[in-house]
Amino acid sequence: MKVLVVGASGTIGKAVASELGARHDVITAGRNSGNVVMDLCDRSSIVAAFKKLGTVDAVVATTGKVHFGDFAEMDDEKYRIGINDKLMGQVNLVLIGRDYVADNASFTLTTGILTKDPIRYGSSASMVNGALESFVRASAIEMKPGLRINAVSPGVISEAMEGYAPFFRGHDPVPAARAALGYAKSVEGLQTGQVFEIF
Amino acid sequence: MKVLVVGASGTIGKAVASELGARHDVITAGRNSGNVVMDLCDRSSIVAAFKKLGTVDAVVATTGKVHFGDFAEMDDEKYRIGINDKLMGQVNLVLIGRDYVADNASFTLTTGILTKDPIRYGSSASMVNGALESFVRASAIEMKPGLRINAVSPGVISEAMEGYAPFFRGHDPVPAARAALGYAKSVEGLQTGQVFEIF
Ligand SMILES: NC(=O)c1ccc[n+]([C@@H]2O[C@H](COP(=O)([O-])OP(=O)(O)OC[C@H]3O[C@@H](n4cnc5c(N)ncnc54)[C@H](OP(=O)(O)O)[C@@H]3O)[C@@H](O)[C@H]2O)c1
Ligand SMILES: NC(=O)c1ccc[n+]([C@@H]2O[C@H](COP(=O)([O-])OP(=O)(O)OC[C@H]3O[C@@H](n4cnc5c(N)ncnc54)[C@H](OP(=O)(O)O)[C@@H]3O)[C@@H](O)[C@H]2O)c1
Repeated sequence: MKVLVVGASGTIGKAVASELGARHDVITAGRNSGNVVMDLCDRSSIVAAFKKLGTVDAVVATTGKVHFGDFAEMDDEKYRIGINDKLMGQVNLVLIGRDYVADNASFTLTTGILTKDPIRYGSSASMVNGALESFVRASAIEMKPGLRINAVSPGVISEAMEGYAPFFRGHDPVPAARAALGYAKSVEGLQTGQVFEIF
Repeated sequence: MKVLVVGASGTIGKAVASELGARHDVITAGRNSGNVVMDLCDRSSIVAAFKKLGTVDAVVATTGKVHFGDFAEMDDEKYRIGINDKLMGQVNLVLIGRDYVADNASFTLTTGILTKDPIRYGSSASMVNGALESFVRASAIEMKPGLRINAVSPGVISEAMEGYAPFFRGHDPVPAARAALGYAKSVEGLQTGQVFEIF
């Protein structure tokens, strides 16, 4: 399969590219990294990248910025960061990508444990993850037959604990390689409309 | 209690105002209806309304527009309608209202069954509901101690079936008066961070 991994240079993306690269032709993408340049916050750059790539069999996103901050200081503008980037960046990848992918292609998006298991400073991450998970469930049933869409919801990643540990006390970190299995299940399996929780 | 019900002239809001009005001082609000004018899509109008009202003990929102449409025709702009209105309208009501409410006040937002049980044309509704439910879970733990926040997730409302029936075949409609009980549980109980599913 020809698998596009947007965010392949990141903590999770590197493990996903390695897991899928063992069996598939992985094309890496990012704003400043990878085989093809693509900024999910800029729809014209998504279109340009798909035009360059030709038909792919699977699209994976391991991207998504949100503003982490004290709820007392969260305002409309700070929630919009996550809405514009992690939520609508991944959604626009699907809305645009669906016109360029193979008939039986899959989309695999990234959410995270904060959908269900909130932490201090995480209200925007939770919001955006919840939005993506319900979007996946709903869009799966309405997509062109044959196309599939799932999300992977990893727990905090072991490789990220150096920076994240103070905010994730009590969380059981997940090695990136184990999180990557969720992406393999989505890309290489047949399920759709699912959230694969890896935590 | 002094209870602000934004959207009190609507299908659900009327039943909520009636349920809570039996025991509390209900102040109704809407863009074009109610005791006080308030447009949740216009933050300055939310501020103005709270300034006029003085301290309230509970804030309820039974509002929220989303674009219903075929997934094939959904684009960034159409998802933004629901994000700006149902999602950020209710979120901004909380972000602004928290500075004007009593010490032990509650916020009660409205989502809906489509978070979990999607229908054709409903991908934006699902997205926004999922966002609100995770926002409620996350913001509840970070709010100023004493403040509470919950969501009510009603099934399709019996009183709305005349218009909605073709899109909700197989759904068991919920009388608005039964959905209103979820709001009473949130306002008059002590739970926080919950999604009360009435379906
Ligand atoms: N790390 C964790 O513990 C953890 C746990 C659960 C969920 N998550 C979620 O997993 C996702 C990835 O996290 P991560 O820690 O792996 O991130 P990361 O290490 O910061 O990597 C992000 C990757 O995405 C690319 N990227 C960033 N913004 C982009 C954009 N607008 N368009 C295209 N590519 C973009 C980056 O490359 P360029 O810089 O070249 O653009 C990079 O390859 C996030 O949604 C995060 O919330 C992370
Ligand atoms: N009806 C159902 O079957 C059902 C089922 C589950 C969930 N829901 C959800 O419940 C919520 C309410 O639905 P509904 O059917 O009761 O709606 P509705 O009958 O259309 O009533 C909407 C109410 O909200 C007010 N409103 C609308 N936009 C507003 C804004 N920007 N700022 C302030 N007030 C505003 C309206 O008054 P003004 O016109 O004066 O502003 C009206 O009072 C929606 O989020 C909907 O998705 C509905």
